[in-house]
Amino acid sequence: MAKNIAQISPFAPKEIQVHFEIQGVKSSSTCCGLYQHKEDLTLFYFENNASVAGVFTKSLMASPPVLKCRENLKTGRASALIVNSGNSLAMTGKKGEEIVKTIVSCVANELNVPKNEVFICSTGVIGHLFDHSKITNAIPKLVKDLSPSKIGNSAKAIMTTDTFPKIVSVKTEIDGNEVKITGIAKGSGMIEPNMATMLAYIFTDASISSFALQELINEHIDSTFNSITVDSDCSTSDSLIAFATNQVGTQVSDSKNPKLCEFSKALHCVMESLAKQIVMDGEGAQKFVTINVHGAESMKSAKIIAKSIANSPLVKTAIAGCDPNWGRIAMAVGKTSEKIDLTKLKIAIGTHTIYENEELSPNYNEEAVYYYLRGAFVEISVNVGVGECSSKVWTCDLTHGYIDINVDYRS
Amino acid sequence: MAKNIAQISPFAPKEIQVHFEIQGVKSSSTCCGLYQHKEDLTLFYFENNASVAGVFTKSLMASPPVLKCRENLKTGRASALIVNSGNSLAMTGKKGEEIVKTIVSCVANELNVPKNEVFICSTGVIGHLFDHSKITNAIPKLVKDLSPSKIGNSAKAIMTTDTFPKIVSVKTEIDGNEVKITGIAKGSGMIEPNMATMLAYIFTDASISSFALQELINEHIDSTFNSITVDSDCSTSDSLIAFATNQVGTQVSDSKNPKLCEFSKALHCVMESLAKQIVMDGEGAQKFVTINVHGAESMKSAKIIAKSIANSPLVKTAIAGCDPNWGRIAMAVGKTSEKIDLTKLKIAIGTHTIYENEELSPNYNEEAVYYYLRGAFVEISVNVGVGECSSKVWTCDLTHGYIDINVDYRS
Repeated sequence: MAKNIAQISPFAPKEIQVHFEIQGVKSSSTCCGLYQHKEDLTLFYFENNASVAGVFTKSLMASPPVLKCRENLKTGRASALIVNSGNSLAMTGKKGEEIVKTIVSCVANELNVPKNEVFICSTGVIGHLFDHSKITNAIPKLVKDLSPSKIGNSAKAIMTTDTFPKIVSVKTEIDGNEVKITGIAKGSGMIEPNMATMLAYIFTDASISSFALQELINEHIDSTFNSITVDSDCSTSDSLIAFATNQVGTQVSDSKNPKLCEFSKALHCVMESLAKQIVMDGEGAQKFVTINVHGAESMKSAKIIAKSIANSPLVKTAIAGCDPNWGRIAMAVGKTSEKIDLTKLKIAIGTHTIYENEELSPNYNEEAVYYYLRGAFVEISVNVGVGECSSKVWTCDLTHGYIDINVDYRS
Repeated sequence: MAKNIAQISPFAPKEIQVHFEIQGVKSSSTCCGLYQHKEDLTLFYFENNASVAGVFTKSLMASPPVLKCRENLKTGRASALIVNSGNSLAMTGKKGEEIVKTIVSCVANELNVPKNEVFICSTGVIGHLFDHSKITNAIPKLVKDLSPSKIGNSAKAIMTTDTFPKIVSVKTEIDGNEVKITGIAKGSGMIEPNMATMLAYIFTDASISSFALQELINEHIDSTFNSITVDSDCSTSDSLIAFATNQVGTQVSDSKNPKLCEFSKALHCVMESLAKQIVMDGEGAQKFVTINVHGAESMKSAKIIAKSIANSPLVKTAIAGCDPNWGRIAMAVGKTSEKIDLTKLKIAIGTHTIYENEELSPNYNEEAVYYYLRGAFVEISVNVGVGECSSKVWTCDLTHGYIDINVDYRS
């Protein structure tokens, strides 16, 4: 969320990932002047409209665009999605709602589609109004430029402090027909999604009802986007929206239909990949950290413990410093109120068991763990010894880069 | 928690604060080699023993010294307190418990007092054993050096990453007799106390029963030590212990006795002052931040919202950067699940109202707030518009200093 371009994430791919076009999806992007030095406005058009499903921030301060998307979702149909970076419109009250209405009307008119099938998302600074004509003046050009091959550009246009575009594509099948899924996302700070992340869009040519699509997303959201955290701060704009253009095969309307089995797995892959890419681009991140909690009395308890470790500034700075300071992991477990059995507690970093049987493991080699921590991928595993439930959470380290990005005036 | 001495807090007093000796309390300090380059072991002796009360960490990983203090507290009597810095003995299991027993026995023998009247506290790295003889060998000298005028030295000996000793003294009266209270504390990282803070000791010559003293501490703990946070991380060693040497007047045993009215206020002052001094010495802190939440439906709700703001890395970095980025304050309110009325929400920084009536205040002058934020003391006020309950929480900004201190190898 800063004006200055941060140091590029060590996890950034050298080139934008190869991805599939999705039949029935066209897009275009432009620079409308809301975010500096790059394209900041992107339009998606679903020629024959699309089934749509979504999950949104649980923030009490959900932005006007989020409110509009939630309302649109009731129809289950989408014809367009417009997204701007540089301004979230959150905390702009009635005036912000008017801006949303004006932009949506403009898109609906230019594309000749119903207003309640036009979705809108905005990401960027909170609490600032902007002149809607910056966007509405750009819409005719966006409509003219629509093309099936520009999803990569869209992935760049939705970026703010992101240092690389996040995109993933998979092929799968429904009832023997090959279907494709392509997802894009943005986000690197203000990341502890609660129902979804900053912005993520998933497009598929599969034929699937809105209802079934929503059920599948609900099934996968907790183990993907709701299992990541960069800084424990939950955005006012978090939105994940999936669009199915119904171009391949005949529509499946029941999420439990066995025909959707492979599709569901592929959708989970896409969601997990996008969520992980967001963590890999976490503000200032130099390391990608996986927290595994096992032996908890419930999945909820396992996740609370995993999140407590993942959000501890002392654990995250220790990882940044390659310090096998496992006492901080113990501290982060201890500060929850969850049930644990101290006599059975095990703590490991990578494959190195550090603490078990109420003492340092006799085989523990601190130097080996120090060398392990110098790598870019770090895994922490904790067994709390009271049950069978597990949780996995992904986070990053806490570095000077995070401070650099976020102390910036009006970032 | 670092080996390197951090930049001294801008709030550090030039000289150790003037403080009163407490009749019946003697102390001494020495360097036993557990913490580098300074005295790291201190002994307090209560000549005619003392009434004692305390609150301790709620961490599931409470350290062996904390367990011993909790056990001792049942007797309501204290003869001695020994404190080391440099090693917390947390997560050292049975072997750590043995070390505690050995040290306590040694102190009891040297002073000829019962073992269950010897309190022990340890602060420093988690999960490391040490050779108990480092401490036991030093005890005879500590006993020999005991003197009524060395509380200031003790305040230094209990420091770890603290950049200044924390001490406060007040005079008050019980039933017309002048009584004195002197408190000391340590703590600057791993600070979000849950029942008490890192280490704090309060000494008074007042005549008051353990029971009454405990009731008074319980009354004041939530609005003092439990209202501060540096980094949201709760220590395994948090301990606040109060000792009354019963030297002045006749003992009061009921905390509701009106004779204790002034004493209770003075005790609150001491606890609040120590808690604030800990925040002022927060790792890397350059600014002292007060978060006021008003208009909440309950005090609990007000505190959850205030803590959410106080613990938000994005709010804390914005303050470090003097950025009036009030949208992050809104975000931090929004990420709680507490009841608020968006139409009545007000956000102010200092005396500057920024957001009200669902929009930026017409009188809002961003430059004025920027200049206000350049000061060392920052006040944030939020009214959530649903009730009459308030909460006040103290915190500090999040700076490069925090990262510097905590990425240090084996800090």
